[in-house]
Amino acid sequence: MSEEGTRVSRRKLFGLAGAGVALAGAGAAAGVGIDRMGGGSTAQAAVTTVDFHGEHQAGIVTPTQQNLHFAAFDVTTTDVGELRQLLRTWTSAARRMTAGQEVVPNGAVGGAAEAPPGDTGEALDLPASDLTLTIGFGPSLFDDRFGLASKRPAQLIDLPLFPKDKLDPARTGGDLCIQACANDPQVAVHAVRNLARLGFGVTEVRWSQLGFGRSSSTSREQATPRNLFGFKDGTNNIKSEDTDFLRDEVWAVAGDGQAWMAGGSYLVARRIQMHIETWDREPLEGQEQIIGRTKGSGAPLGQTAEFDDVDLGVRGAGGVPLIADDAHIRLASHQTLKGTRILRRGYNFVDGSDGVGHLEAGLFFLAFNRDTRKQYVPMQQALSSKDAMMEYVQHTGSAHFAVPPGLTPTSSWGDGLFA
Amino acid sequence: MSEEGTRVSRRKLFGLAGAGVALAGAGAAAGVGIDRMGGGSTAQAAVTTVDFHGEHQAGIVTPTQQNLHFAAFDVTTTDVGELRQLLRTWTSAARRMTAGQEVVPNGAVGGAAEAPPGDTGEALDLPASDLTLTIGFGPSLFDDRFGLASKRPAQLIDLPLFPKDKLDPARTGGDLCIQACANDPQVAVHAVRNLARLGFGVTEVRWSQLGFGRSSSTSREQATPRNLFGFKDGTNNIKSEDTDFLRDEVWAVAGDGQAWMAGGSYLVARRIQMHIETWDREPLEGQEQIIGRTKGSGAPLGQTAEFDDVDLGVRGAGGVPLIADDAHIRLASHQTLKGTRILRRGYNFVDGSDGVGHLEAGLFFLAFNRDTRKQYVPMQQALSSKDAMMEYVQHTGSAHFAVPPGLTPTSSWGDGLFA
Repeated sequence: MSEEGTRVSRRKLFGLAGAGVALAGAGAAAGVGIDRMGGGSTAQAAVTTVDFHGEHQAGIVTPTQQNLHFAAFDVTTTDVGELRQLLRTWTSAARRMTAGQEVVPNGAVGGAAEAPPGDTGEALDLPASDLTLTIGFGPSLFDDRFGLASKRPAQLIDLPLFPKDKLDPARTGGDLCIQACANDPQVAVHAVRNLARLGFGVTEVRWSQLGFGRSSSTSREQATPRNLFGFKDGTNNIKSEDTDFLRDEVWAVAGDGQAWMAGGSYLVARRIQMHIETWDREPLEGQEQIIGRTKGSGAPLGQTAEFDDVDLGVRGAGGVPLIADDAHIRLASHQTLKGTRILRRGYNFVDGSDGVGHLEAGLFFLAFNRDTRKQYVPMQQALSSKDAMMEYVQHTGSAHFAVPPGLTPTSSWGDGLFA
Repeated sequence: MSEEGTRVSRRKLFGLAGAGVALAGAGAAAGVGIDRMGGGSTAQAAVTTVDFHGEHQAGIVTPTQQNLHFAAFDVTTTDVGELRQLLRTWTSAARRMTAGQEVVPNGAVGGAAEAPPGDTGEALDLPASDLTLTIGFGPSLFDDRFGLASKRPAQLIDLPLFPKDKLDPARTGGDLCIQACANDPQVAVHAVRNLARLGFGVTEVRWSQLGFGRSSSTSREQATPRNLFGFKDGTNNIKSEDTDFLRDEVWAVAGDGQAWMAGGSYLVARRIQMHIETWDREPLEGQEQIIGRTKGSGAPLGQTAEFDDVDLGVRGAGGVPLIADDAHIRLASHQTLKGTRILRRGYNFVDGSDGVGHLEAGLFFLAFNRDTRKQYVPMQQALSSKDAMMEYVQHTGSAHFAVPPGLTPTSSWGDGLFA
């Protein structure tokens, strides 16, 4: 962690800088990956890195960066030794790349001329850009291939098929995942691409998803961003400052069943296609009733400001409830869900066009919770069966991962799994 | 244009800011779209806009922004009046959005509650982020539907099929195109999405492509960015400062045939998939021979610095030519091409995965030239038949557009076309 004085002055810089640069909050450390920074870089200051090490993996409560590249992998080897070695190799590469360094020293241009480069080079000259790399293990990794069945957490269920799911197998599942977040898309892409490269012969990319615009903030230092429905998203998200909620609702403990997961969490990834053309023809009033908030300020209906407490019982003229029975904010609220909360970290996406005249757009939903059985699943059961918003969305991809705890400077992503 | 004093101080701000914020160069004007900026924005300074008006459309010599959303449209109406009206509506919306404003005043939240909003809202609170919107007209627009056959420029050919092209019809062609570039992907996406929305019933999205990392710089103020082969790309690109080249190689004049195109240009869009996994197994020396430059500095082989003049005849030990007959830099050079140059403005992309274990990655090539028949076509004929790089790329999409000249504050994108 950096000194307070340094943080304040950097924050002031960011305040001046504005567009495109996220505020650097807790967990960000000043630093320049000097072995990757050439003299011709356009980015010479205000370069921040997020510490790869800590009690928890970075990329969960880290203030949400602007850009995402998420990839799910199939393990193609059946040799557990190769898998273990790859996790060590990946950890070493991730440790370096999150520090703004190449995969290996002088990887792109300094190796032997007759050898393939140790780094693909497209992030040369680019700073770390707050890159975080977060690993997860899917349910399928715990089948009979690698002797891991006894290590599978009870929380790491095969997600049920929810009402109206229309999942594409090519966007669903995965033995492993890497979540790369950064304030430069090229840095996030470079990281995933190099991990995929290092995995050649051991893993294959099953699917990958780019995202932008961080549809949920995870820090009170961040303004609440907007999703592609045009609404502020994540006002009542668990934030990095909510230490009690993090303890109770996000971080696994040894007593939850699998001691190796203590300090970890469970990641649900859902690719949610939005029918934005249909949404755009819905009157403002209808949109606001579906969400349960005003579009401009983000205030809950019946309130005046974004962060005002939600009052699900508030009534308007003639005693009519302002927040409808099928409003998203009601069904997703911790009041309705008996106190359940999750930490969301999703991104907006546009993946070309849908082939019938529209953009293929939506929200790549990422959420971390301590027990998916008790948190995400009942929440999504309620939303998928009752939410008025379901008319405008379709879940087209789905995955679930156990996200192990954080690392020390000498440990590896696979240590707990294979301990 | 802004005053020099303002530009210098803004540049200083950007210099401090660094990552994710492009330098604002020629054509950028200081300004804040104050009717879209709420109090809760994280971006409160260093906000720049690019003037929508001028002799030429913005987005051609404008210093390349970080993010791209490009969309091609089919016109679905056969009513020429509807098409003309849409071009007026689009111009008005583009004029406002490039100034950091909503599509219409108070569009997202200020309209009638029972009416669909006039702006989709996801760019509320976001600054203009140097947004440029550039329109083009495809060859198919000049068929018999709208009486435009006599207006078709001879330069606007149907592109030939080049050797090894593997074009996907769903990524090829289009009656119209919109190129949206900005330093915030959400701003570019918002712009395209709102133009698509305004076109409902008149146009449909045929295909769309997101990009990042500006694979070619168009100003000497910008460092040369890297493509996903890890090489600096665009060192010898035509830059906004090369006024003679712009006059001779980019801007159409009345004497070229169609007076309405004077001040315009011709845009070639090519989606080039890169087989990055194969490339990554190629030794450094082989990569450098294929390109004809060193990977680190970008210097031409046989030279020492990126911007050193290319010497195609330079020889190494034993008199062996250093720049091979099939090197990309040789085949694409203006020396080989009898002086022909183009202005490139492409972007890197990753579109998920290819379904067989790899990322779907590449370069979305955008180039402007004065006569595609004499510039892009012979260049691509040479490259597609001889370039050593062809083993690592595949052209999967293709389109060609006539880009009309710039606008006055009261003119419309369709004025010349329908004059």
